Amino acid sequence: MKILALETSTEFCSVALYLDDKILTQEILAERRHSEIVLPMVQEILADAELTLAQLDGIAFGAGPGSFTGLRIACGVAQGLAFATNLPIVGVSTLEAIAQQTGEQKIIAALDARMGEIYHAAYQRLAQHCWQAISPPMLCHPQQAPSVVGDEWHGCGSGFDAYTQELSIIYTKNIHQIHFGHHPHAREIAQLAIPKFTDGTDTEPANAAPVYIRNKVALKENER
Amino acid sequence: MKILALETSTEFCSVALYLDDKILTQEILAERRHSEIVLPMVQEILADAELTLAQLDGIAFGAGPGSFTGLRIACGVAQGLAFATNLPIVGVSTLEAIAQQTGEQKIIAALDARMGEIYHAAYQRLAQHCWQAISPPMLCHPQQAPSVVGDEWHGCGSGFDAYTQELSIIYTKNIHQIHFGHHPHAREIAQLAIPKFTDGTDTEPANAAPVYIRNKVALKENER
Repeated sequence: MKILALETSTEFCSVALYLDDKILTQEILAERRHSEIVLPMVQEILADAELTLAQLDGIAFGAGPGSFTGLRIACGVAQGLAFATNLPIVGVSTLEAIAQQTGEQKIIAALDARMGEIYHAAYQRLAQHCWQAISPPMLCHPQQAPSVVGDEWHGCGSGFDAYTQELSIIYTKNIHQIHFGHHPHAREIAQLAIPKFTDGTDTEPANAAPVYIRNKVALKENER
Repeated sequence: MKILALETSTEFCSVALYLDDKILTQEILAERRHSEIVLPMVQEILADAELTLAQLDGIAFGAGPGSFTGLRIACGVAQGLAFATNLPIVGVSTLEAIAQQTGEQKIIAALDARMGEIYHAAYQRLAQHCWQAISPPMLCHPQQAPSVVGDEWHGCGSGFDAYTQELSIIYTKNIHQIHFGHHPHAREIAQLAIPKFTDGTDTEPANAAPVYIRNKVALKENER
């Protein structure tokens, strides 16, 4: 299976090309230039693999939560690519992507949502590329993060980087280790897309949509 | 020349297919569903014309100013479509698009930018599908809109709808008529793209970018 993945939900821009025997990746600190650099990155990674879009089996994108405008870029570009090439498309949770990145089995994933809040979810690994949400994605203050049962949990994501103390207090009995410095990357977006392509999850380009959670901000911005 | 155009900078979502002898168009009041409906609209308009993407000569999109997230959708989808099909792409000013829509020769175009401000420009028609900016696009309070020289000007756009009185006072000696109820539409985006495709303006998908003007808001949103 050959999958192209795009991730633009943070200040980083990454692309990945999942091939059966390897994954090629590129990542650039994009600041606000995602829409200028994502396509040249796609072009380069396809050239490196000597592949064309038509030879792929699907396109995946980081669906959020994350930067509202960033999510629109990956989703829009992925939709356009998939529509034009008649390829299936899937959006993958950025919280699941950072869980996948740790390599652990029980993950509390938290992304810094700014304005004193975090995007939060807890996952347990079901298979190599498949996670079960024990606590579903939500927006909350770090001090009000939902509790989890049991120990041997691992924390990860920019939410833990920003609110280490607050989250350490809440999960003092649960967390075995906090993994710092993780942010969503197209590599895991590609990996987690595989079962969605194989099990026939809805993959119409028109149905691809970012995941927001914080709809108040979305509304305010989009109403202009 | 066959051009597909996308416009998602306001609460409306429109697509247009410019063919040499006619223009097909579709428009839907999208609210915040632009990314769900734009591709089905593209699919339908191509089917109506019995054309495929590969038979087009270029893709155009409404580049703004306008809703920050809306602009990202049209730009992203257009980039993806253009990249996958190896078609040239151009962004067209939404202020020029509403000027074009009036059918007049001297236009003061103003779009409501919310927060008490407007996007403003003044244009004089050079040719059927070509405008010269007499006053370049800017963001300002309606009470501080830049003056223009001479009479026989026409006002148009949601800025005039929202701030009729303020702008009427400023342009009392200049404006012959205000045209109400105009918003950017893919029809004029397609028309104004024609000279850009024929004169070889930069049309690389990776270089396509929205026009913002209000960068403070952009920054705030994207930094999340």
